[in-house]
Amino acid sequence: MSLKLDSVSTLLNEPDAAPVHSVTLFVALVSACIVIGHLLQKTRWMNQSVTALAFGLCTATVIILTTNGKISDILLFDEDLFFICLLPPIIFNAGFQVKKKQFFQNFIIINLFGVVGTLISFGIISIGSAKLFMKFGLTFWDQGDFLALGAILSATDTVCTLQVLNQEDTPLLYSLVFGEGVVNDATSIVLFNAIQKFSVHVTPDTVMQFTGSFLYLFSLSTLLGIAVGLMSAYIIRKLYFGRHSTDREVALMILMAYLSYVMADLFQLSGILTVFFCGIVMSHYTWHNITESSRVTTKHTFATLSFISETFIFLYVGMDALDMEKWKIVKGSPGTSVAVSSTLLGLVLVGRAASVFSVSFLSNLANDSPIDKIGFKQQVTIWWAGLMRGAVSVALAYNKFTSSGHTQRPKNAIMITSTITIVLFSNVVFGLLTKPLVRLMLQPREESSEISSPKSSSALLPLLANGQDLASELDSVGGGISIRRPSSLTMLITKPTSTVHYYWRKFDNAVMRPIFGGGGEESPPNDILH
Amino acid sequence: MSLKLDSVSTLLNEPDAAPVHSVTLFVALVSACIVIGHLLQKTRWMNQSVTALAFGLCTATVIILTTNGKISDILLFDEDLFFICLLPPIIFNAGFQVKKKQFFQNFIIINLFGVVGTLISFGIISIGSAKLFMKFGLTFWDQGDFLALGAILSATDTVCTLQVLNQEDTPLLYSLVFGEGVVNDATSIVLFNAIQKFSVHVTPDTVMQFTGSFLYLFSLSTLLGIAVGLMSAYIIRKLYFGRHSTDREVALMILMAYLSYVMADLFQLSGILTVFFCGIVMSHYTWHNITESSRVTTKHTFATLSFISETFIFLYVGMDALDMEKWKIVKGSPGTSVAVSSTLLGLVLVGRAASVFSVSFLSNLANDSPIDKIGFKQQVTIWWAGLMRGAVSVALAYNKFTSSGHTQRPKNAIMITSTITIVLFSNVVFGLLTKPLVRLMLQPREESSEISSPKSSSALLPLLANGQDLASELDSVGGGISIRRPSSLTMLITKPTSTVHYYWRKFDNAVMRPIFGGGGEESPPNDILH
Repeated sequence: MSLKLDSVSTLLNEPDAAPVHSVTLFVALVSACIVIGHLLQKTRWMNQSVTALAFGLCTATVIILTTNGKISDILLFDEDLFFICLLPPIIFNAGFQVKKKQFFQNFIIINLFGVVGTLISFGIISIGSAKLFMKFGLTFWDQGDFLALGAILSATDTVCTLQVLNQEDTPLLYSLVFGEGVVNDATSIVLFNAIQKFSVHVTPDTVMQFTGSFLYLFSLSTLLGIAVGLMSAYIIRKLYFGRHSTDREVALMILMAYLSYVMADLFQLSGILTVFFCGIVMSHYTWHNITESSRVTTKHTFATLSFISETFIFLYVGMDALDMEKWKIVKGSPGTSVAVSSTLLGLVLVGRAASVFSVSFLSNLANDSPIDKIGFKQQVTIWWAGLMRGAVSVALAYNKFTSSGHTQRPKNAIMITSTITIVLFSNVVFGLLTKPLVRLMLQPREESSEISSPKSSSALLPLLANGQDLASELDSVGGGISIRRPSSLTMLITKPTSTVHYYWRKFDNAVMRPIFGGGGEESPPNDILH
Repeated sequence: MSLKLDSVSTLLNEPDAAPVHSVTLFVALVSACIVIGHLLQKTRWMNQSVTALAFGLCTATVIILTTNGKISDILLFDEDLFFICLLPPIIFNAGFQVKKKQFFQNFIIINLFGVVGTLISFGIISIGSAKLFMKFGLTFWDQGDFLALGAILSATDTVCTLQVLNQEDTPLLYSLVFGEGVVNDATSIVLFNAIQKFSVHVTPDTVMQFTGSFLYLFSLSTLLGIAVGLMSAYIIRKLYFGRHSTDREVALMILMAYLSYVMADLFQLSGILTVFFCGIVMSHYTWHNITESSRVTTKHTFATLSFISETFIFLYVGMDALDMEKWKIVKGSPGTSVAVSSTLLGLVLVGRAASVFSVSFLSNLANDSPIDKIGFKQQVTIWWAGLMRGAVSVALAYNKFTSSGHTQRPKNAIMITSTITIVLFSNVVFGLLTKPLVRLMLQPREESSEISSPKSSSALLPLLANGQDLASELDSVGGGISIRRPSSLTMLITKPTSTVHYYWRKFDNAVMRPIFGGGGEESPPNDILH
């Protein structure tokens, strides 16, 4: 069996109990984080992420001080643990709990932010670091390193922001920031892989190749996720009809969700995208085919697993920040280290600003209605929300600049310590300021926060009302073809999103639901059009 | 970080994708097992365990045939995976869902079966194999090997039987077999560790030492489990009062349950006992302090995790049975191999018979009332239920006779293949016969199956009625001291279990529940005295 916990040496042989130590330590720390996070919930500044980060840093300091830096293995970031165990539950739960209506209504702008924005950010960080570092006389790195750096530092970490933004108060802003975060993660990982695979010299040919591979990955990953999700819905609907068993249903949902992720990795697709869409399909179909207690269980189990993973990740990043091996190597050249870190931090700020403001500008150009435009305050909030860098960056940096977590080369060690510095700085400093900033930006218009958020629901009301009427009419005629059909071509041109949505509803009711279940009288986890 | 998935090499580096293969394979196989197990549920012979075993064997055959035996790593049993990931959820769930009333009422006889019975079985297998193998001229093994063998083959695997016995139809027989299984697992693992630790030569001194260490482990493990369980109840009661959060509650329960297991291992105690008692305490107190949806979630999540682990274990044992490395070594001496396997299988049958019939005889001697006695058919059922050997035996055998799964010595390879043979044979042959046998043994008296089961509820009715009256009276006076108090000393001598139970109820209501929560109006997962 390959999925080995190799270094967790035999529990039965007492002498070698160190691994049990670290498992116990981590489990105890995560429990403590949850309790303390709960106690600090009401405070103005702190949030669960920063608490976990701080907790991790403190624990690492204590470990280093008490063991004189001997136990440092525990402080080594393990990207496999991150990508195989911790990331999938978070992304799956994101898909499972996302408000599908808002997500798909803002699909275009989310993708603009997530793909185009990330590419802009990537370009600025790559080119900027290459130019600036050359100016500073730092010439250790080649073009491949800078490109990788661009991808590594383009991966935002929105978990922290999402803990502050409220899905109920500002649903559209939340869905925008959240949707962008998922697409951004996928984009930067795909980007990173593409850079590793292709030659380091950028030619028009490689750009074409890259674009092709990007589109291929994007569409195939999405399709795989949808396919596995539909399969789970079909199996549970067909087999379990009449004799439900909660344990089997829940087990099958958990296993098939994870299966979609590992299958994507097996086929060298983007597991993140796959498991995200698998989550969406499962909440739309599968979830409706299971018993009431299975529904409650799955909903909370997925949320809990995601919650544990998030807490663990921040704790882990906090602990691994004190990976002494790299800091010792870097210690010789403090000037270079500070210069690199602060330059990169500046580039992150500039890159994010450039991408958010230019994409918002584009989006505002395309929208005539002034109420549909993304206001300046919203733009600042979106900019801010994407400044944090997190575990994805750390994992990618370890992948690029170390071999199984170790490196002896100063040029690589600097990259790791700079990434860690940026992650810590952005999370702690920006993270602590987020709650007050969001309040400042969104609170003054609290009474009209719905209106002030981009693509506000009131602006969509006419379209929605239209869609809703048609949808309910469709429902009432049992999935038959509606008579009061608007001119589809005109509609598609003027209101593309709602037209797509209207035809999708029709198809969903007529074809999909009879096969895969879902909908009906019972309310789904996140209403689609009710 | 020490909990590394070392051999799951970087998912991002495509060339080295083999580990993802195996994760994908296992997840897909477990899903398939669950679906097929569901389809076969109504058949007369098959059960989930045998399905998973057969599935594992078939898959391993396919892998060996298609790869010409090249991929054999996947077929290597990993005891760490088993002890760290798969076993804890099963045992915790056992404690969480056990019908506490029956378990504690039969506490003495369960411990007789679990401890004394296991020791008898251990003695017969150890001494028997030493004597018989010497007779056959097989002199490779020393005393330590035989003692270890006794412990390895004394660990029963009752999961398979429990899938056949019905908790509703024969609750007391179920609780007896189930309780014995847990205590037996703990006993044989403790026994195994003690043998590894002490010198190979048995002297009165080592017997004393062993007894001391056994009692120490037993009591400390139990206390640790109770302590962690109470801590979880206290934390959730105190902190979450008034502002519940389902995710945090569920996360904390899962983490603290696991924490009890790893802490026990850290302190070199028996994790199995600890996590079992932690489960009992959590279902008695903690479970009552959380919200309704957390209750549904935890109940089903624990059951689901346990179900997945069980299925995975049987699949895994089935796949690892074709660990070609050992079979190739053994192939040279087929006669020896067959002789060893069949001798050991015979000793398992005899050892189990000796322990069950002698413990039953003792228990029947102590009971005057003919209706309290364990009938012959019940004895046969209990004997049969403990014949299966499972993953614990395999894990212990790998621990004793290999170093990290590998061995080149024929004497060790034979032990591994014999253990695998016994596990497969007992599960498949005995397992398939269990459903018909249980029907044969228990069905004829179906109308009075309650009566026919040992320590039948009707026999306990006077005691129970007594206890119940007192308990409800206690409840009605709000935990105060009852006036209608029977003579405690007489009661303790004549009816020890119910007297202990009566005082426990009193203490529970007066002291424990006000601090740790629990009980009240709402119904617990498994009623205690309602």
